[in-house]
Amino acid sequence: MYSVFESEVSIRPDDIDMNNHVHNTKYLDYVLAARYEQMVRDYKMPMEEFHNLDYNWFVSATYIEYKRALMLGDKIIVKTQISSVNGAQSKVNFWIVKKENEKIVAEGYLIYTMVLLKSGRPVRIPDEIIKKYSV
Amino acid sequence: MYSVFESEVSIRPDDIDMNNHVHNTKYLDYVLAARYEQMVRDYKMPMEEFHNLDYNWFVSATYIEYKRALMLGDKIIVKTQISSVNGAQSKVNFWIVKKENEKIVAEGYLIYTMVLLKSGRPVRIPDEIIKKYSV
Amino acid sequence: MYSVFESEVSIRPDDIDMNNHVHNTKYLDYVLAARYEQMVRDYKMPMEEFHNLDYNWFVSATYIEYKRALMLGDKIIVKTQISSVNGAQSKVNFWIVKKENEKIVAEGYLIYTMVLLKSGRPVRIPDEIIKKYSV
Amino acid sequence: MYSVFESEVSIRPDDIDMNNHVHNTKYLDYVLAARYEQMVRDYKMPMEEFHNLDYNWFVSATYIEYKRALMLGDKIIVKTQISSVNGAQSKVNFWIVKKENEKIVAEGYLIYTMVLLKSGRPVRIPDEIIKKYSV
Repeated sequence: MYSVFESEVSIRPDDIDMNNHVHNTKYLDYVLAARYEQMVRDYKMPMEEFHNLDYNWFVSATYIEYKRALMLGDKIIVKTQISSVNGAQSKVNFWIVKKENEKIVAEGYLIYTMVLLKSGRPVRIPDEIIKKYSV
Repeated sequence: MYSVFESEVSIRPDDIDMNNHVHNTKYLDYVLAARYEQMVRDYKMPMEEFHNLDYNWFVSATYIEYKRALMLGDKIIVKTQISSVNGAQSKVNFWIVKKENEKIVAEGYLIYTMVLLKSGRPVRIPDEIIKKYSV
Repeated sequence: MYSVFESEVSIRPDDIDMNNHVHNTKYLDYVLAARYEQMVRDYKMPMEEFHNLDYNWFVSATYIEYKRALMLGDKIIVKTQISSVNGAQSKVNFWIVKKENEKIVAEGYLIYTMVLLKSGRPVRIPDEIIKKYSV
Repeated sequence: MYSVFESEVSIRPDDIDMNNHVHNTKYLDYVLAARYEQMVRDYKMPMEEFHNLDYNWFVSATYIEYKRALMLGDKIIVKTQISSVNGAQSKVNFWIVKKENEKIVAEGYLIYTMVLLKSGRPVRIPDEIIKKYSV
């Protein structure tokens, strides 16, 4: 029902930690970067447009499973897909894969809550937003 | 069965993101910082001792639920407790609470896998390590 | 003329990079953290108070010399001292030293420019701010 | 004498700080990312090749001047040029420019010291490395 969108994200040297691979929390920053690109390119509704309507998205929960270590020099694609929209919340599944062979490096989901920008209070995701996201 | 250990972790200005609160992935770095302190102070086995025995810990999975936003200036305590040890894996529950009122800011768990430092291959957690952790 | 203020800053595991020591840009984040603490504790004028007056501080230039590597587990003190105040700009010298022996790990300076919060335009540092800073 | 090399570097949402623009220390991480790409693509000598020869590069000093704020969505090019090579040290000038109009966002230099990987001790940059870098 909801499309899978893909973004290439670059690994930077400052993402590498003492284990000589990408630091575990950076994977989630890669997913965030992919979602931002996809908001602009695929949903045609960048974050500023949400802000202009007094909306904001907060992360309410994250789950991630690490399958393979990422090294500096690896090329990755972040795939995301909305799994469900319910009240103020939207669940987004993600997969980080190696560009060369599509092998899954990590996978998981994020639960986003729509809040009012000024108050920070949760608000039901409006139908026109759901429609925008139903591509 | 396993003790709850506590560490105070400081919030830095560079942890704050465009939403003017602590960036969501930094919460997990606070948990990591707490675990490192607790390895030294509470388990009496710092990471270097694992490395000397050719062992290392990798994060295999993370789950976190965000309950409240953290602001610059907030004081926090990270509490962790081993939930189970099984084969090569150890599950650690965590709670980030405000120091002033013990209100839960975020909670979740991490699944760590013990690997051989050189090969990166998983290895059964040895009994003497389990014993060290059973405090 | 201007006092030297000191802050202890904690090194976190996520600050360590592939060279197994503190990543070079993190030293500057430690200085920023020290300045924030000192604004509250020593100058009695936290950043929010500047914001309330429609002021903000931007970093206009940074110089840092690295003398020694910092490791996870090292305890550090960040010392800062205003060197000069001129028009919209303030130059702040800093020294990062090891807590145990006061050996200098890094030193340098930051040039801050006072700007109007809303417009981002530089503004002459008002006399009452200079007075606050002349402790 | 030394060529100017260019790399495009992406701005990620987690690079944005409480001022709603790119955090000041991230500019230096962008320069580091550009240098890594240029080591592989332009000097044909990636960091691993240095490591294999028991060499490593440490940052000994950094100077940066900030001219314009960078926003999420901005496209940037990092230009670098070796300025001098002297004993164990190499000075590298850099300019971060906006892709659309070549306007300078920040500029400065880094002083790198060649060290032995195992001991961390400075070592005279060998002639064959200088030759590699003289492109």
